[in-house]
Amino acid sequence: MAAKVKKAPRPKAETPKGFRDYFGADVAERKAMLDRIAEVYHLYGFEALESSAVETVEALGKFLPDVDRPNEGVFAWQEEDSGWVALRYDLTAPLARVYAQHRNELPTPYRRYAMGPVWRNEKPGPGRFRQFYQCDADTVGAPTVAADAEICAMLSDVLEVVGIPRGDYLVRVNNRKVLNGVLETMGLADDAQQAAVLRTIDKFDKVGEAGVRELLGKGRLDASGAYIDGVGLSDDQAAPVLAFLTSKGADAGRTLANLRDAIGASAVGAEGVAELETMAELLGAQGYGSDRIEIDPSVVRGLGYYTGPVFEAELTFEILDEKGRPRQFGSVSGGGRYDDLVKRFTGQEVPATGVSIGVDRLLAALRAKGRMGGATTGPVIVTVMDRDRMGAYQEMVAELRNAGIRAEVYLGNPKNFGNQLKYADKRDAPVAVIQGSDEADRGVVQIKDLVLGAKIAAEASLEEWKSQPAQFEIARSDLVAEIRKLLDKSDA
Amino acid sequence: MAAKVKKAPRPKAETPKGFRDYFGADVAERKAMLDRIAEVYHLYGFEALESSAVETVEALGKFLPDVDRPNEGVFAWQEEDSGWVALRYDLTAPLARVYAQHRNELPTPYRRYAMGPVWRNEKPGPGRFRQFYQCDADTVGAPTVAADAEICAMLSDVLEVVGIPRGDYLVRVNNRKVLNGVLETMGLADDAQQAAVLRTIDKFDKVGEAGVRELLGKGRLDASGAYIDGVGLSDDQAAPVLAFLTSKGADAGRTLANLRDAIGASAVGAEGVAELETMAELLGAQGYGSDRIEIDPSVVRGLGYYTGPVFEAELTFEILDEKGRPRQFGSVSGGGRYDDLVKRFTGQEVPATGVSIGVDRLLAALRAKGRMGGATTGPVIVTVMDRDRMGAYQEMVAELRNAGIRAEVYLGNPKNFGNQLKYADKRDAPVAVIQGSDEADRGVVQIKDLVLGAKIAAEASLEEWKSQPAQFEIARSDLVAEIRKLLDKSDA
Repeated sequence: MAAKVKKAPRPKAETPKGFRDYFGADVAERKAMLDRIAEVYHLYGFEALESSAVETVEALGKFLPDVDRPNEGVFAWQEEDSGWVALRYDLTAPLARVYAQHRNELPTPYRRYAMGPVWRNEKPGPGRFRQFYQCDADTVGAPTVAADAEICAMLSDVLEVVGIPRGDYLVRVNNRKVLNGVLETMGLADDAQQAAVLRTIDKFDKVGEAGVRELLGKGRLDASGAYIDGVGLSDDQAAPVLAFLTSKGADAGRTLANLRDAIGASAVGAEGVAELETMAELLGAQGYGSDRIEIDPSVVRGLGYYTGPVFEAELTFEILDEKGRPRQFGSVSGGGRYDDLVKRFTGQEVPATGVSIGVDRLLAALRAKGRMGGATTGPVIVTVMDRDRMGAYQEMVAELRNAGIRAEVYLGNPKNFGNQLKYADKRDAPVAVIQGSDEADRGVVQIKDLVLGAKIAAEASLEEWKSQPAQFEIARSDLVAEIRKLLDKSDA
Repeated sequence: MAAKVKKAPRPKAETPKGFRDYFGADVAERKAMLDRIAEVYHLYGFEALESSAVETVEALGKFLPDVDRPNEGVFAWQEEDSGWVALRYDLTAPLARVYAQHRNELPTPYRRYAMGPVWRNEKPGPGRFRQFYQCDADTVGAPTVAADAEICAMLSDVLEVVGIPRGDYLVRVNNRKVLNGVLETMGLADDAQQAAVLRTIDKFDKVGEAGVRELLGKGRLDASGAYIDGVGLSDDQAAPVLAFLTSKGADAGRTLANLRDAIGASAVGAEGVAELETMAELLGAQGYGSDRIEIDPSVVRGLGYYTGPVFEAELTFEILDEKGRPRQFGSVSGGGRYDDLVKRFTGQEVPATGVSIGVDRLLAALRAKGRMGGATTGPVIVTVMDRDRMGAYQEMVAELRNAGIRAEVYLGNPKNFGNQLKYADKRDAPVAVIQGSDEADRGVVQIKDLVLGAKIAAEASLEEWKSQPAQFEIARSDLVAEIRKLLDKSDA
């Protein structure tokens, strides 16, 4: 008796947790969108950059959004010759490294765009993946807020170019210095209290003015009935924050005046308000009014590294959430000025500003509005009636392709003809071509109009069905011309 | 005295060893090439797939080319929730996983293309990086060699579409079964001897027929004077290998006849020769003659997983190597049939065949032949003479962009005007626009034709230089029209 051979278990055919694959139309649609965005970036003078996906942990630094713990949130491992390395978690940290490394060869200012996947080692959830696309544009080495204004204008152009019409989005601009001015006037006890105030400001969208007032003071009973402790400020201390949050006026002039009140005598606050004013002027000169770009003091942006203007693009239309309730689509892009990121490497301050577009969210928005997809068509399928005449079928697809028509021969097992038509259906094929030896002898082919066929199957009576106008015979020599006619018809 | 604060050392601004960044034209050229390749793949009915960059080590398997050791050669790390994971080292192993995972939803045959970076944890060297692009097309679920022939035809089309003219490349086709047939007829002692024979065959290109004869027998003194031990076969035993390697005839018919002699009575060998014959017939029917695709028994392909047809695209022109010596450019693409890769997951054999294009090598070839680059142009630069009139400069670039002209305002420190022109030069700007307050008052701008300026600087006499025809004044209202005229001129 032979000894039993122990078989190795089969590997599981699964992506690692939090990763996914993208097929056909999803890939094509994302590519089409990225191409359009790149065109706008290029028109504005930005140059492409593709940095390596792997960076040293040292170079990446501790700037991961929403993660305070060092080296948490990234995929990292140790290399013998490079020490700890990690997959990039965004495109901004790599840009700072690239600029520091190549600054002697690069032009200054350096306008660059970058698009590609980034990786986050976070808990995956529904619609939340560990690999996703970003599409950034940044200007390094331009100290003027004209650079920030340019980014906002470009962001507005990008949204319209990819298919979000004016009125369906808003680029909202704020300035960290204004916020710093407000905090300065409040005379806070320590950094911890300041951090608590910032966290409270971030909740303004959810809890409103009254809620923020309670949270800055003694605390608040939230919707679930739980009591949330307050920051413990007096009404007088809390006043500047509330003035700041409610400072949005009917127009930019009114908002700026309110902000000036909110910052009191703070010098850094005054600087922030002046920067916002300059941006509003520059954008106005280029025709970007408050229907596209507006000053909105409630924009905070989580990232700690912002030092001046911050901005956010919000889609203002409603979609239905997973429970069927209407809600605002919300933010698809954000950015701001970060003057200290390159300094980490070089010791010298290098001003920088930029924007990051959440490509997958933007695609989701376009799909939700029905502004994506549907236009893709499968190939013409040449079926195989006669295995020995494969060469003749290959000739047909070669002719069709040479005429620019997407076409293929069925290459599965041809025995069951029904399977071939099922395949054509699965591929969204507009046309199937059929030629048995009988047709070959007579120099003809059968053409099956699958678009019309599907329509008849859905709508036609039995009599119409039997008359089968969706299938007809043509001369072999007319193959390309007849199929082109059919495709033009179904395009129309 | 305050305690000394210990400063953290600055991070190094460096990519990890073996990684690099790609800038501007390099990114744009690769993208243009990938777009053209994708168009051909699409025309042939292939669908895009973008699988995750990270795979479980288990799913990737041990198929890394040229690496026999398990899990060597990849970047791998351990995740709490997914176990050992790794960056993909090619696009074929992920395809096998994707097809096994999604086979119930995917059409069969499944034609897919994929393009993107792959990662190899190998010793980096000059021009040899740890992250590089691949661009693959594969057909899964098609048992017929018509699928292999289609891939070869498509590869030929791709090379011509990206700019390699007919005559400058050759797709060479062989079949593993023929080789297996040859080995069968030799009556080898064991697997180790078989492996030694395969390694020797791989050296045929370098050492020629006489060299292989020596290496299969007693051994050989190589060029450096070292003695290389032979496999130790008798002349009779070695004869089939030599017949096989020298079987290439004047045409496919002659080559096939020689191969039939070489395989003797081996059934698997006969199957291989028949498959080659069918491929030659099918390709002939579509007009792909031996000037584009030819049977060449010396093609082996290193990968262990190939089971039938193997192919390779070679560029046949000479380039100069780093020492200035002419040499053949060599292989830019390879592939073949691998019927067992999906079986690893499912237990059932799933036929598959495909090709991988070495994008970076192909780009290098096009650059070596001068068929790439040079066509990129920098933006029109609107200079800043007067910091307070930034809005007016922004208006100019907005007008230019709305007319589709790439344009930007200089956003560095404007104090030194020379720096602005240096910047324009570094950006390859075709035109600089200049407007001081004097010009603004008169409603004009100065236009500096930087293309002509560079030409004059290189060629003109002092008199011509002084007359400065490269700079002239135009009405502000003619800005777009005049610049378009200049750009059209320099395009011509």
